[in-house]
Amino acid sequence: MADPATTASRAAGRGEDYPEDLRELVERYLLDLRFSSAGGTAGLEEAMRYSLLAGGKRIRPVLALATARATGNDPRTVLPTAAAIELIHTYSLIHDDLPAMDDDDLRRGRPTSHVAYGENVAILAGDGLFAEALRLVAERQEGPAERVVAALREIGAATGVEGMVGGQYVDVTTPAATAAPLDAAGLRALHELKTGKLIRASVVVALALAGLSEPETIPYTRFADELGVLFQIVDDILDVTGSDEELGKPHGSDERHGKVTYVSLFGLERARELAAESHTKAREALSGAAGDTRDLGRITDFIHTRQR
Amino acid sequence: MADPATTASRAAGRGEDYPEDLRELVERYLLDLRFSSAGGTAGLEEAMRYSLLAGGKRIRPVLALATARATGNDPRTVLPTAAAIELIHTYSLIHDDLPAMDDDDLRRGRPTSHVAYGENVAILAGDGLFAEALRLVAERQEGPAERVVAALREIGAATGVEGMVGGQYVDVTTPAATAAPLDAAGLRALHELKTGKLIRASVVVALALAGLSEPETIPYTRFADELGVLFQIVDDILDVTGSDEELGKPHGSDERHGKVTYVSLFGLERARELAAESHTKAREALSGAAGDTRDLGRITDFIHTRQR
Repeated sequence: MADPATTASRAAGRGEDYPEDLRELVERYLLDLRFSSAGGTAGLEEAMRYSLLAGGKRIRPVLALATARATGNDPRTVLPTAAAIELIHTYSLIHDDLPAMDDDDLRRGRPTSHVAYGENVAILAGDGLFAEALRLVAERQEGPAERVVAALREIGAATGVEGMVGGQYVDVTTPAATAAPLDAAGLRALHELKTGKLIRASVVVALALAGLSEPETIPYTRFADELGVLFQIVDDILDVTGSDEELGKPHGSDERHGKVTYVSLFGLERARELAAESHTKAREALSGAAGDTRDLGRITDFIHTRQR
Repeated sequence: MADPATTASRAAGRGEDYPEDLRELVERYLLDLRFSSAGGTAGLEEAMRYSLLAGGKRIRPVLALATARATGNDPRTVLPTAAAIELIHTYSLIHDDLPAMDDDDLRRGRPTSHVAYGENVAILAGDGLFAEALRLVAERQEGPAERVVAALREIGAATGVEGMVGGQYVDVTTPAATAAPLDAAGLRALHELKTGKLIRASVVVALALAGLSEPETIPYTRFADELGVLFQIVDDILDVTGSDEELGKPHGSDERHGKVTYVSLFGLERARELAAESHTKAREALSGAAGDTRDLGRITDFIHTRQR
């Protein structure tokens, strides 16, 4: 892979240099996690680990580690909280895939949790991952207790009614409940809740654990908010343009579910322009942040140019 | 109701003098809780409040408040954490009732969440209550941050794989997965996870927030563990002896679900003896605790003699 084109693309920050060192730290930490000491719950733990260890770029925890690095801290110091966010992300995917929700059979190229383990176990695997996420932070996150509480506050807000769960509610109820589909503002509001808040939290927990002052956090949070928008626009584009193999699930699933997306609202070409604009804005916000933000920039480029 | 028999039974601590002042504090606090500021999630909030405000004795949060009082603190100081435990209890009931789990249509005399709002909303109402519980503690619980983290640690452990969710997993998978039904030790272990840990947590969070030293907590935690056992034995008895009206759901549902209970294992008479023994043990443990534990004693009597 050392041909000149690749090297040039790498140098131009085309998403080829994702911070793999941070991803590996996360992966190893997740792999070592155990949730069950008693025999009776080994099957539940197996189901939780099946979904948790399905791979992926680990964007959220890697964001947390990169933010720690940017604020001058050892990325490993935030691993429990970063991993907790990945547990929560995994729980949300399991519940979103359930028959009563999106009813998806494939995720990352493998049967979804309820297909592999049954619906009852899938619901409990999601519930268990959420509880174990809380436990991970409260039991293992080091640092001043005030900062740990601040991180948990952010996680609670990002996952509740004014965050992830609220966004999923809007997503599953909007097509049926309203005659008019979402407009651009509604789409942005939905995604801000459903995916944006947890991406934002991935950055903000590391700021909280670093004890940054309020003014110092502003460029970072502006960056994190824009990154959530960029992530979703690209996600919508990939659902249309990605191959099944790349996506690990049948493409076009948004359309089949009748979902409003950036592509259905604006068309593919305009959606790509919006992604480019969002990428620029995220990069600009980041340039105002103190610290070595190069890894955060690389993640931003990756999110823009990713193929799945 | 001021006839001599009632007065005598009250004086004898037959569960007639449940600490209603604490229950009212909890009830009012729960009634004032709001989860949603945006219009799009109002329906989710409605579903959450439908289950949360269905009444009941609020045993878990009242235990937390009574423990605060016993340790010399104003019960109101632990309200956010006490309420959070009731949110979590409510979430567990919603998910336990789902078609993929126990498939129950009635709870406290009303349609269960998925019957009233659909399965997708019920799953999200449970998820939302869990997240909002975390948020409540992290945002509103006052006191030294170390103690707030300790309370959250207890809640995480009580709700995860080695707690409530693990217990529910054993409960839903045991009949199908094993040829042999549970024996007495297995039954006790199941309930210790499924209901015992959260009842224990209701006491322990208040100890943590009070900053009690380890030796001081021992009689309280012994009490709390035994109270969980007592609660479950009585629950199993009531499922057989209670009227549908008293229970708010069809009685005999354990038997229909093929569940092993204290009654199915030991018979009704022996189960009643076990309850009496457990009540005595809980009372004895409590007598070793420093502080004014009268309300905790009243709750213990109530749990023993309750009719639903």
